[in-house]
Amino acid sequence: MPELAYVNGTFLPIDKAMVPVEDRGYQFGDAVYEVIASYDGRLLFMDEHMVRLNRSLKELSFPEISIDKIKAAVIELFDRAKMERAEIYMQISRGVAPRSHAFPNNADTQFIMTARKITEVTENIRQQGAKAITVKDLRWGRCDIKTVQLLYNVLAKQKALDSGVFDAIFVSEDNIAREATSSNLFIVGNGNLITHPLTPDILPGITRAKVLEICIEQNLHVSEQLYNKETLLKSDEVFLTGTITEVLSIVKIDGAQIGNGKVGPIAKQLFDALRVRSKQK
Amino acid sequence: MPELAYVNGTFLPIDKAMVPVEDRGYQFGDAVYEVIASYDGRLLFMDEHMVRLNRSLKELSFPEISIDKIKAAVIELFDRAKMERAEIYMQISRGVAPRSHAFPNNADTQFIMTARKITEVTENIRQQGAKAITVKDLRWGRCDIKTVQLLYNVLAKQKALDSGVFDAIFVSEDNIAREATSSNLFIVGNGNLITHPLTPDILPGITRAKVLEICIEQNLHVSEQLYNKETLLKSDEVFLTGTITEVLSIVKIDGAQIGNGKVGPIAKQLFDALRVRSKQK
Repeated sequence: MPELAYVNGTFLPIDKAMVPVEDRGYQFGDAVYEVIASYDGRLLFMDEHMVRLNRSLKELSFPEISIDKIKAAVIELFDRAKMERAEIYMQISRGVAPRSHAFPNNADTQFIMTARKITEVTENIRQQGAKAITVKDLRWGRCDIKTVQLLYNVLAKQKALDSGVFDAIFVSEDNIAREATSSNLFIVGNGNLITHPLTPDILPGITRAKVLEICIEQNLHVSEQLYNKETLLKSDEVFLTGTITEVLSIVKIDGAQIGNGKVGPIAKQLFDALRVRSKQK
Repeated sequence: MPELAYVNGTFLPIDKAMVPVEDRGYQFGDAVYEVIASYDGRLLFMDEHMVRLNRSLKELSFPEISIDKIKAAVIELFDRAKMERAEIYMQISRGVAPRSHAFPNNADTQFIMTARKITEVTENIRQQGAKAITVKDLRWGRCDIKTVQLLYNVLAKQKALDSGVFDAIFVSEDNIAREATSSNLFIVGNGNLITHPLTPDILPGITRAKVLEICIEQNLHVSEQLYNKETLLKSDEVFLTGTITEVLSIVKIDGAQIGNGKVGPIAKQLFDALRVRSKQK
């Protein structure tokens, strides 16, 4: 089960995988990415990740790239890495060129990947639920594009850890709860689920979309609408969704208990249903 | 006059200068930078750049780094490159570690540099003045830290070029004129200069600070205060300041002529004074 990297067509050990210092991903954050997980040795929701990747590339006016070739490379990396629970990280940058803000002429996009074993959410946090803090949302205005403009997410996650909790939830200047540092956010009140609508302020999460589908299948009432921090804090349940996060209950926010302070029945139901779906795909 | 790179203590050709794919600068934009110019074979405002670099590192809680060692490396790169008009680009990232948002334990910061010949503003634009567009400011909330979170600056600069103009000026949601994609902004009205105060919304430009000093020396009235897009458009003069930009007049914004549409006397005076200062340093 080797951890493995890929750089523009070449497979190699991760510690040998390098990019030029003038890669625009490095100097400008001019790059997009995806993270794909596997269960039981199969890659999950591959087509959905490819659709989102393609959208990110188009939103940033990247040169035309064959998604079929990207997909084939992902599959080959995964086959070579042979891991039950792999995390395939893929990043495409606009290319390598002498530093200048404007798009370069004739630069080739750079495509790198790593395959690593997933760092799972600990069993303790799964069972007990996680704690979070809220932080002001100072991210840029296009969080709907999956780019490497992630420094504020990094700072927020670290602030959470420094505060002794699992994650941070971004709250806008006008008090709207957005999402967490690498997961979308759902709340439950009186049996009704709410999640933030797809705007430029949040990532269009694939797990978010799957959970919405499951809600409909299971006759759970769910709506996509804005809600504020007060509504968040007085919810019966709060949970995160994401590729690695799956469905994860948040039981305390800014020190205040959410609902009865335990993993809620709806989060549990959705976690189980998502796992079933993941194993079918 | 070789163009040259530096990676963690090693000097090498730029096209051989590489960083690991798991450098956090590449995957998270978790890196800071500076650009230092030279005139007549001498590096300009080195100490000011080192002070700002140190502030950026501290704002992001980077591990302690010796600024003296960084400075010595910059000087050695510059000595080896032997260029009259060099642009020294330096970037420090938090280090290399398996991808995870939180700060890594025990990762070594990465320090890379390139020395390239400056791409000068063309003589035509210097003489005639430049044109600009305004764009909504969708950058993150800590533009005062000189990080590689620059994708929105890239998109704005490209939009300017696609519109047939030189640069884009960021205007906030509440209509405040901030700065351009890699320069600060000054306006002149009735002989009085105004520039945006140092807040988290703009870069604390070194050329901006030098121009403020020159204004005081030359008895020009200058104040640091917020001003909106309408004030910008009805100014007698508008100009940009920056390490490569120096002092550059903007004579048209969003298709509207600024003042008499020519390089103004105050911008010219400040450009000349800055050049004199640059050659003295």
